[in-house]
Formats: sequence, C-alpha cells, structure tokens
Amino acid sequence: MGGDRGPAAVVAGLAESATAIPGAYFIVHGDEAHLGPMIAKRKDLTGRCEIRHAPRVVTMNDKPSQVMRHGEGTSMWSCIESVRAGEATVAVSCGNTGALMAVSMIRLRKLPGVNRPAIACMWPSRNPGGFNVMLDVGADIKADAEDLAQYALMGASYARNGLSLERPRVGLLNVGTEEHKGRAELKVAQDLISANAAAGAYEFVGFIEGGDIPGRRCDVIVTDGFTGNVALKTGEGTAKLISDFLREAFGANILSKMAAVLALGSLKRLQKRIDPRRVNGGVFLGLNGTVVKSHGSADGTGVAAAIALAARLAQSGFHERLAARLASAGRAGQDAPQDEMAAPGRSEKR
Amino acid sequence: MGGDRGPAAVVAGLAESATAIPGAYFIVHGDEAHLGPMIAKRKDLTGRCEIRHAPRVVTMNDKPSQVMRHGEGTSMWSCIESVRAGEATVAVSCGNTGALMAVSMIRLRKLPGVNRPAIACMWPSRNPGGFNVMLDVGADIKADAEDLAQYALMGASYARNGLSLERPRVGLLNVGTEEHKGRAELKVAQDLISANAAAGAYEFVGFIEGGDIPGRRCDVIVTDGFTGNVALKTGEGTAKLISDFLREAFGANILSKMAAVLALGSLKRLQKRIDPRRVNGGVFLGLNGTVVKSHGSADGTGVAAAIALAARLAQSGFHERLAARLASAGRAGQDAPQDEMAAPGRSEKR
Repeated sequence: MGGDRGPAAVVAGLAESATAIPGAYFIVHGDEAHLGPMIAKRKDLTGRCEIRHAPRVVTMNDKPSQVMRHGEGTSMWSCIESVRAGEATVAVSCGNTGALMAVSMIRLRKLPGVNRPAIACMWPSRNPGGFNVMLDVGADIKADAEDLAQYALMGASYARNGLSLERPRVGLLNVGTEEHKGRAELKVAQDLISANAAAGAYEFVGFIEGGDIPGRRCDVIVTDGFTGNVALKTGEGTAKLISDFLREAFGANILSKMAAVLALGSLKRLQKRIDPRRVNGGVFLGLNGTVVKSHGSADGTGVAAAIALAARLAQSGFHERLAARLASAGRAGQDAPQDEMAAPGRSEKR
Repeated sequence: MGGDRGPAAVVAGLAESATAIPGAYFIVHGDEAHLGPMIAKRKDLTGRCEIRHAPRVVTMNDKPSQVMRHGEGTSMWSCIESVRAGEATVAVSCGNTGALMAVSMIRLRKLPGVNRPAIACMWPSRNPGGFNVMLDVGADIKADAEDLAQYALMGASYARNGLSLERPRVGLLNVGTEEHKGRAELKVAQDLISANAAAGAYEFVGFIEGGDIPGRRCDVIVTDGFTGNVALKTGEGTAKLISDFLREAFGANILSKMAAVLALGSLKRLQKRIDPRRVNGGVFLGLNGTVVKSHGSADGTGVAAAIALAARLAQSGFHERLAARLASAGRAGQDAPQDEMAAPGRSEKR
C-alpha cells in the first residue's frame, strides 16, 4: 500500500512476476476493498495470490520509531509478520525504508552475532556478472570496525548467492588505497576483514576508492550506511544526468535524430544496461528472514525486478546459508583466544 | 615535476594556456636541466615564463607529514613559496594532494577563523551555469559542525566568483532531506549554516541527498572530506562506466556505426559536457593564498583547464573577497552574545 505510486505499481509488478516465475505464490497485504478489484482484473494472478487484509498504511513520512511502536494493523507490519510466521519465504516492500527496517528488526530480530543489520544493493559494474554488491546503503548512519567486518561476511554471502560467485572479492571503501589512509575505524576493520577471509570464504583486496564501486577490482564494497547511501544516490544521479544529456544530444538536429533511429537497438540495449529499475531491490541482511526493499518510486517493471531478486534468494536458500556462514565465522572467533579486539575470527590467521 | 605524467603534460598545458590567457605569466618550478629544453621548444612560451630551479621532487607516494618536515628544495615547496612571497598570485600543481595541502598549510597558514581548510571542486550539473561547487572533497577526513559552517561560507564565496552567482544556494549533504535525519553534527551544522546565511550572502536550502549533487536544488554542496571524496570518485567512475558502455553500444553493429558517424557533432558536444578534464581543478580554500590542485593524471588539456580556473580566480580578486567574507561572518558572531554553541554568527537570526 505504501510507495510513491501506491498499490497499482505493486499489482502491475505482481502480474509481470506471475508469468516470469511460474512457481511463485503471493500474499498481498493491504486494504482488501482497494486491492480486491485491482487483482481480480489481472487474469495472470488468478489462483496465484491471496489478500491479507490490513486496514492501516505506513506513509513515506512516518517516523520509524512511531511505526515500530504503533505499526500493528499496517500492511507493512502484516507483510513482515507473514515472514516471521513462516507463511512467506521472503518479503518485498516499496514502502518507507526506515520504517521497514524498524519493523523488520523488532519482528524478525537480528541473527545471532549481528550488531547492525545492513541494506545491500546491486551496482552496475565492469565485472563479468555485470554487477557489484555494496553494503550498507542506508540501514544505519554509522558502523564501527566490527560492524564493517560483519558487512564483509554478509555481503560476500549475498554475492555468492545473488551473483553466483564462489569466492567473492571484498573491498573496504576509503579515500585512498594506501594502508595509512582514512578513519581510525577503517584501519581496525581492515585487520578484522582480512582475518575473517577464510571463514567467510572471500578474498580481501584491501582499501578501494569511490571509482572502484562500478569497477572490476572487487565484487563486494563494504562501507557505513551514510557513505554508502550518498554514493548510491550520487551514482544514480550522475547516470540520470548523463542519460538526459544523451537524450538532448540526439534531439539536437536532424542528423542526430536520424542517427538515433539507426542506433535505436544499440541505444535500447545501453539504456537497459544502466536502467536503475533493472537492479531494483535493496536486501536487508542480518535478520531472521529475508526482506527486499524496492525503490519507493518503482513502477511495475521495478517491482517485478525486486520480486525476481526475492524469488532468486528464496530459491537458493540464501537465508539459511548466510546464517550458517555468520555462525561459523563467529565460532572461529570464539574458539580462539580472546585479545583486546575481541573480534570474530581475528585470531584465525595467527 | 610531480603528477602521473610528469612535466611533459604541464608544459603542454602551459603552452595551451599562454595562447588562451594573453595576460598570464608563468613561474615554472622544477629541475632546470629537464624543464629548460622542453620549454625552449614551445614558441608560445617565449618571454612568457621563467624557470625556478628546484632539485627535488615530491612523489605521489610520499607521506604528507614527511614532505611537511623535509620538503624544502622540492618543486612543490618552491611553488607554494612563490605564492607566500607574493611573486605568484596563484599556485597550480598536479602533485600529491595530501603533500600539497600539508605544504600549503605550513607555508601559507590558515586564514584567521578557519579551523580546517577544504578542497572545493566543480561538478557538472543541471543548473544554468552547468556546474555546482562541492566541498570538502578530500582536504581532511573529518569535519565537525563548525567546520561545515565554514565550508558553507567558503563554498558560497567560491561559487560567487567561480560561477558568477550573486547569492548562491547552499545545501548540506545528508542521507535524507527530513530535518530529523542524519548524524548529530549535521543537525548542529544545519542551525549554524542557516544562521550565517545573511553574513555569507547565501541562501540555505537545508539537507540535500546524493542525487542533488548534479541537480538544480542548490549551487554549493557542503560535506566532510571523506564523504565528498567518495562522492566525487563515485560520480567520476559512473560517468566513465557509462561513456565506455556508450562507446561499445555504437560499435555494436554496422547500423550503430553509421549512426555514430551521423551523430558525431552531437556526441562530441556531449563528451565535452561530461569530460572530467574540462572541470579539472580542486581549489584549496581557507589559506592565505590560492592553490589549485589539478588531477594527478591530467594531460595538457586538463592542466590548461586548471590554469584557466586559477587565472579566473586570480583576476576576480577571489582570495581577498573570501578573506573579507570570513572576517565579516566571524565579526557577526563575535559581536553577538555567546551561547553554548559559541558559533560564528549563530545569534544573528534572533
């Protein structure tokens, strides 16, 4: 019911997904009187979904703390509840990000050993798979060294399942690649992430810079939620600016308009390659259950992309694998003698 | 002598600038035996420049703290020294950024009232002037609320002189535009920047997001050097990725190749519009003297762009205006009753 375009975009996305993912079944949460007729009109959805009535809606302006305390009866709460109860394998929402994270935290609870959950996104890149994973892009505005080390474990696990990479390469975002550069917590995090590499089944490439986010130096970019959110929005804004400039360039004169017609196929492929709707879906990591956050402004195509991602994660048993990986990295740390860092897996390397 | 391409790129840039800026005179710092023959070959430079011999070179890997202590005799030190002595109006360097800032700080000293100097850059945008100003993009990895307030004053002053805007609009970079969002220091900075608006002759638009950096919501983006540096490099990396994809798209088949020929003029204009070399030059703000940092990898065209920016700032009397503006904002605060924030200009609004 939330999101900038309301339930129409969600139902359009559901209809697209029903055809694309034959095995999927949908529980749709929200106002039955509103949703019922919309869904009934879509023949693709016959027998493929049920409506779970929820009378209230979380708006885009509601404060997360308010929703966390008084959110019962909203479609968002009902959606997360269906994951908690085991009725749904994965939740998808276009609603208020902060509220969705708050409700997910309180209802699903954090995985053992996780201090701060994170939101991971896919980023178009030069790597063979076409995408990199970046986290945190906005679950929390801060992260200490141990949080960053957990992001590395969770991000690697996500890349393994979402990008089919056996041994993802992890980079830690900084203002330079030299070891002495950056904030104090990044230097500590560097040691922790390096020490966890075996238990997390990833390769640590060290510090990376903003230019490496769409690059091929690593598959997983680890950063705090403030920096990650700014980077994500800066990248999206820059891509949007250039595609607007491109459109203007092709409309400039008769020659360029003819060129645009000739190049239509190639340009469409390019547009598809950088279309933010295709990579729609931030995944909440570190909870007892998988939640996919779609862009608030997503249209039917965007919602379908988020659902496709959710289905892929559900089918690969991603959640169970992530939990097992975190537990194994945690054990590696607990088995080892504690030092002043008390960091999971830190002593492995010695 | 520094920079990734060494003195050849610098001399090529000088020759381009000598033609473009008839009134400019250049003092070139570095190894005379090396520079002499290169400059002698360029007829454009006859009578337009002199070589100041400096036997040593700061490399891209030297630590700033080392260069600060033992940098005498390097071309970088000699260059900054010529600004300190009043022989040069402005310094331009392609060298090691951290070392250049360290040498500038110790030789030029900070302007009265400035705690942390900042590096400001121009960013392609949707605004009529075609660019926005962002600072800090890497002078320091942290900034407290009062530093951010000074960045607003300095950035507005730079936009006034560099973009000819009478009353620049200032935005504070955050993860959301709601007043309650973001880190604690950003909420304090918001009040300080708002209170300084009259003394700084700018308009404060409040919090902005990463997507607004290339947008038209404001002209000046204020942020700490860590976030600003990541955003700058992410934006550059994204632009580079898309232009590579574009090149591939036009090479895809015979139709798209024909299209590229037809659209050549438009595409060249587009490329020029997003060419990072055209906006080459970070300006160090908050020192007794103006220093322009060119990209380390700049070629002749990039160096010429940095020199053009430096000349524009020198001719507009930018440095004197900035110092006067900072002094007036400082006085506004000193005249007013002190509160617990003790921030310059904070009580103005009451």
